[in-house]
Amino acid sequence: MTTAREIRLKSRPSGMCSHDNFELATVELRDPGPGEVQVQNLWMTVDPYMRGRMNDAQSYSAPFALGKVMDGGAIGQVVASNDPGFKTGDLVQSGFGWREGFTAPAKAVQKLDPRGLPPQAFLGAAGMPGLTAYVGLLKIAALKDGDVVFVSGGAGAVGSMVCQIAKAKGHKVIASAGGPEKVAFLKDIGVDHVIDYKAETDLAAAVLAGAPDGIDVYFDNVGGPHLEAALATARLFARFAICGMISIYNATEPPPGPRNLAQLIGKNIRMEGFIVSHHFDMMPAFLDDLAGWVREGKVTWKETVFEGIEKAPDAFLGLFKGENLGKMLVKLA
Amino acid sequence: MTTAREIRLKSRPSGMCSHDNFELATVELRDPGPGEVQVQNLWMTVDPYMRGRMNDAQSYSAPFALGKVMDGGAIGQVVASNDPGFKTGDLVQSGFGWREGFTAPAKAVQKLDPRGLPPQAFLGAAGMPGLTAYVGLLKIAALKDGDVVFVSGGAGAVGSMVCQIAKAKGHKVIASAGGPEKVAFLKDIGVDHVIDYKAETDLAAAVLAGAPDGIDVYFDNVGGPHLEAALATARLFARFAICGMISIYNATEPPPGPRNLAQLIGKNIRMEGFIVSHHFDMMPAFLDDLAGWVREGKVTWKETVFEGIEKAPDAFLGLFKGENLGKMLVKLA
Repeated sequence: MTTAREIRLKSRPSGMCSHDNFELATVELRDPGPGEVQVQNLWMTVDPYMRGRMNDAQSYSAPFALGKVMDGGAIGQVVASNDPGFKTGDLVQSGFGWREGFTAPAKAVQKLDPRGLPPQAFLGAAGMPGLTAYVGLLKIAALKDGDVVFVSGGAGAVGSMVCQIAKAKGHKVIASAGGPEKVAFLKDIGVDHVIDYKAETDLAAAVLAGAPDGIDVYFDNVGGPHLEAALATARLFARFAICGMISIYNATEPPPGPRNLAQLIGKNIRMEGFIVSHHFDMMPAFLDDLAGWVREGKVTWKETVFEGIEKAPDAFLGLFKGENLGKMLVKLA
Repeated sequence: MTTAREIRLKSRPSGMCSHDNFELATVELRDPGPGEVQVQNLWMTVDPYMRGRMNDAQSYSAPFALGKVMDGGAIGQVVASNDPGFKTGDLVQSGFGWREGFTAPAKAVQKLDPRGLPPQAFLGAAGMPGLTAYVGLLKIAALKDGDVVFVSGGAGAVGSMVCQIAKAKGHKVIASAGGPEKVAFLKDIGVDHVIDYKAETDLAAAVLAGAPDGIDVYFDNVGGPHLEAALATARLFARFAICGMISIYNATEPPPGPRNLAQLIGKNIRMEGFIVSHHFDMMPAFLDDLAGWVREGKVTWKETVFEGIEKAPDAFLGLFKGENLGKMLVKLA
């Protein structure tokens, strides 16, 4: 490769982000110097947390710089190597997403062992979204026998893994998603009670229809009315893993929190936020468990794929419109 | 005693409760039958959680019945006994507060060993409020070396114990209270940085003035803007013990929750509600620790005392106006 196209942050959004915030540019790729590799990206990921990085605010990940290429997870293939550890054709994982290719120090990329899975699975079910589901359910919510589990955003990259891990461990699972296609997918993967939140006016009643005695664990991907419904339907000593609040990421004014937060007290609820990067030590155990579940047919996944780097903003914006079923990906080559 | 006066729930409040919700009545006391005792109450407690019991709503404690005597903690003295386990003059603890005296089965009262403390201390520092502080700080918030602690309602029965237990264990403590008298009391018991919330427009800035690097533990007695300030100033892996939200107990419409609840995620905050009655197993350890701290002069307490059963509603209503410094009590004899 001598050139690569990339997506840059053109302007910071105020409220809902749009195409105006992105621009496509072409850059020259230098030949790899000593200890460097050149990589052609095959797949890149877009994730809701990136919305926060478009703001000029300190958060748990640094803001994207204006006028500069954005970044994120990617899977690629080495096309030229000047490092003894890598050869042409090696599959690698990196944080150099939002571009077709790059030249970088070899130590900035990791060799990928696909373990019989398609490589892009390591951006989804076998990557950060899958590990997020695993950590949130098993460690943060401390899932235990007999727990009834409620998941919002159940058809997303994280949510669909939460549903399946909980089912694989024998739990009753209630999940919400928007629209008939996602509802059908969730029924297909064995969710006991599926809520189409776009068709419901009373989310708490919808949860109770599937869990008449209430819920023990809530995995929150969306915040807002779903969190309120979870507080309303929680049982004594319920545990909430707070993973994301996609419903508010594009708000200009932060919306008020749940009106029934005082339920925490009487019900002795534990509500804990988490970022998966603090729990990378659980990755080996997760990949072992995942391999078993895939073998036994207990875990599967869906992908929503956009093709071409120029479509990356479409893929990203689609996350906030609920356009993805499972993992949202951009195929680059 | 042949008669006793008592306070009954006359009507259920909508919004802020008032004198109209209470009525004073006089009842005949029967002589104790076999296995019964007659008790003259010396002290009774009024506590914020009783506000919830005035509503006709299922909560963690049953609602008071309309037209019936209210109840709650009391310390009394046996004045007649028809049970071999009790004799006249015995100090007893019971749930038969809001009345001057009662006749009841001996097994419904517990003999009180005052351990050298004034008996009414067992309604405050050495009773449920003290245990609440101990459980919330040590178990729920899992206080650990080096933690910076923030307490709202710091001059109340629970809050002042939280401040002193944290100080006894060597922590930096930031506490809020309303008005100069409470501020002076908190400085007096060694709180490092005291916030007069009535004089502040920016609570988060006030917390940071005392804890420039943020807080690790928040003990919430009030909810509302204090909780928002705690979320704003929390450090990574902070733990919040959610004990009470007195700011909203009289609201007719539940107010919105904190606008910055999404801070839970990036900061990996754990927020846990609790009711002390699930943790009575910690009472012996608490009383042992308390005895040591009192001996070493590390823990002291204040009382705000109303005299006479007819003043019990004044004492109770005063809780919501912040009229108490330390434990609010009614002296009955």
